[in-house]
Amino acid sequence: MTEVLNDAHSATVVQTAREQALVETVVASFDGATDDRLRTILQTVARHVHAAARELQLTEIEWESMITFLTETGQTCTDTRQEFILLSDVLGLSMQVIGMNNPPVADATEATVFGPFFVEGAPHIELGGDMALGAPGEPCWVTGSVSGTDGAPIVGARIEVWEADEAGQYDVQYGDDRQAARAHLFSDNDGGFRFWGLTPTPYPIPHDGPVGRMLEAAGRSPMRASHLHFMVTAPGYRRLVTHIFVEGDEIGWKDAVFGVKESLIKSFARHASGPTPDGRYVTSWSEVTFDIVLAAADRN
Amino acid sequence: MTEVLNDAHSATVVQTAREQALVETVVASFDGATDDRLRTILQTVARHVHAAARELQLTEIEWESMITFLTETGQTCTDTRQEFILLSDVLGLSMQVIGMNNPPVADATEATVFGPFFVEGAPHIELGGDMALGAPGEPCWVTGSVSGTDGAPIVGARIEVWEADEAGQYDVQYGDDRQAARAHLFSDNDGGFRFWGLTPTPYPIPHDGPVGRMLEAAGRSPMRASHLHFMVTAPGYRRLVTHIFVEGDEIGWKDAVFGVKESLIKSFARHASGPTPDGRYVTSWSEVTFDIVLAAADRN
Repeated sequence: MTEVLNDAHSATVVQTAREQALVETVVASFDGATDDRLRTILQTVARHVHAAARELQLTEIEWESMITFLTETGQTCTDTRQEFILLSDVLGLSMQVIGMNNPPVADATEATVFGPFFVEGAPHIELGGDMALGAPGEPCWVTGSVSGTDGAPIVGARIEVWEADEAGQYDVQYGDDRQAARAHLFSDNDGGFRFWGLTPTPYPIPHDGPVGRMLEAAGRSPMRASHLHFMVTAPGYRRLVTHIFVEGDEIGWKDAVFGVKESLIKSFARHASGPTPDGRYVTSWSEVTFDIVLAAADRN
Repeated sequence: MTEVLNDAHSATVVQTAREQALVETVVASFDGATDDRLRTILQTVARHVHAAARELQLTEIEWESMITFLTETGQTCTDTRQEFILLSDVLGLSMQVIGMNNPPVADATEATVFGPFFVEGAPHIELGGDMALGAPGEPCWVTGSVSGTDGAPIVGARIEVWEADEAGQYDVQYGDDRQAARAHLFSDNDGGFRFWGLTPTPYPIPHDGPVGRMLEAAGRSPMRASHLHFMVTAPGYRRLVTHIFVEGDEIGWKDAVFGVKESLIKSFARHASGPTPDGRYVTSWSEVTFDIVLAAADRN
């Protein structure tokens, strides 16, 4: 530079202009992308990355810390651990993306986070069957119905259900090949369904990695509100990915991934002993009802 | 939700309110951070992550692509490869952070990107010595001075210099333990310095990883403008990290990492043969002058 900048005001004006000029240069560098959507994404991301850095007046040491954090987050990922999804989850980004892509349609059931623990090809169980498949926990009798927003029952809807056991572990965390506390079933001719699962309990997201350290430094809990996962699909309807949550849960709205929605909190009736609705005798069980309403596929 | 949302306008209003409410919930989740700066950083990053996702109306498939890209970027990092710094570089973030932390001070020499190839403990050379140390390339006679913004010479300033060879490789990319084309020297009693280096040539940043694929998809070149790195330190002065660039360079302003600044472009005089300024006879050499002005440390 050739101009002399001895007064603070002129220096600030020059500095601001330089910072903004760099942003425009970076944005323009993506003008040649042949895919319009890719260009829009890269330019929007670049603008927000620079805006955040400028608002923060990020120091070089802080920048180095961010590089290290992102590197460690990538290096914590394995075939069975996805630390960047966790990061997205605890920043509420996962929930935001789900919300934007599943806008409210009449009284259709709301969506929530997918989570990292779904597995394709879970066992099929009959209506009234037990999806726990040996996973430890208090039995929970789950009943409900699947219908469209017009109230018409949906026959043969595919219902995938999965959850953690009472120790907070999903089967994929057992370290062997067992499938447990996950299954799929189909709604009956009245759109109804019923199965045995486990009473959901709270558990922490994996918190021994960079995301867990970030939560700890920020004074946040890694605990997820107690929940049971559902994914429901039927021809002509929008796929629904959701959970049901437990009324009165100790974590509840403090859910680490912002997944709780009022409409998804259900009353789980607790029973000290049987008989159960299907005529068995069980010591300590619960029951819950979840009536599912699917939006038509053409609305999204 | 219990309200019925049959008209599109109401649905949009409800949706926008929900998206904004989620952002505020996420931001508030960091309120408990005991470190004020950490809280500010996390809340600012969270706001911009959500703003970008909402502006883009990011789809679930695009979100998955971003998760995959970040994961692969982290997993490409090794002891000698830092793919997240590359990502920061090609987004212009590295340059922005350097610019913000090295604001203009009078006619002090401008800073530019540090790059990933600096090594602590490079060999010491005497004034007039050869920093190429066997690296292939056209010899370049580099002379200049180090002074303060008041014009007073700075005696004994430590000058670190490093660069790629004519094949575009730094010594750390040779795959052995050689140190070449990197050294440090000290300014003399008049603040002057002189040494032999290599005429800088353009080379690509490592582009066989996720960042290279991103640049290719965006129609951008991975080439860096020809340059010679300097880091200059002296007690009482702000550390200067910079390059000099070659006037008329074929890459120039299209530099992949946005490092070029007008004031750092220097004329490299080309000579078909000797004698050289130090009385040697060399076939094909160049020479350049770089007068370095350091800002006082207390200005930053």
